[in-house]
Amino acid sequence: MPIIEQNTVSALNKAGGKGEIFITHLLTPNEMLGKCQMFARVRIPVGASLGVHQHIGNNETYYILQGTAAYTDNDKVYAVKAGDTTFCADGDTHGIENIGDDDLIFIALIINTK
Amino acid sequence: MPIIEQNTVSALNKAGGKGEIFITHLLTPNEMLGKCQMFARVRIPVGASLGVHQHIGNNETYYILQGTAAYTDNDKVYAVKAGDTTFCADGDTHGIENIGDDDLIFIALIINTK
Repeated sequence: MPIIEQNTVSALNKAGGKGEIFITHLLTPNEMLGKCQMFARVRIPVGASLGVHQHIGNNETYYILQGTAAYTDNDKVYAVKAGDTTFCADGDTHGIENIGDDDLIFIALIINTK
Repeated sequence: MPIIEQNTVSALNKAGGKGEIFITHLLTPNEMLGKCQMFARVRIPVGASLGVHQHIGNNETYYILQGTAAYTDNDKVYAVKAGDTTFCADGDTHGIENIGDDDLIFIALIINTK
């Protein structure tokens, strides 16, 4: 079957963030062949966040599908909305918080740099 | 700026498909470091399609965001809808056609296998 079974996991206070977030993995490690580490749809309910954390050995892209967020890039904070793409390079830190009235939903892609 | 500038290109009769399709690149080759070849949002208007083509040296995942499609995987055709994830392994062929009444929109990720 070419249609992949998805696997949703939840995490509480992820990277020191607030509340519970939900990560739906769209690919398994087998399909990513060591090139990527995660390809997922992330849902962050109202008021919750994914805490600021550093990426070492990989970079991460978020493509915002729905909602409004405060995106922290190293020491600066940016407002992001549906349609925006954010990029955290290897060695940088980032985090994201739902500051809107609806679920924040985005695609997350982690590409290994080594 | 951690917010990436997006670049939309259109293609007519792509891979022998019907009509015009629109590809919004979310990452550049520099950010993908040779690990991935494309990370994009694809929009296929009503009645248009991306023709069946083979992947050699990479695999491709579609994550359907909106619409209804006929997804061809090698010699079989599947109906796919928002929320579905399709996977085309290295060496396989695939194509996708909008068979609904609204734009078909999906995220496409090509991961290099070599």
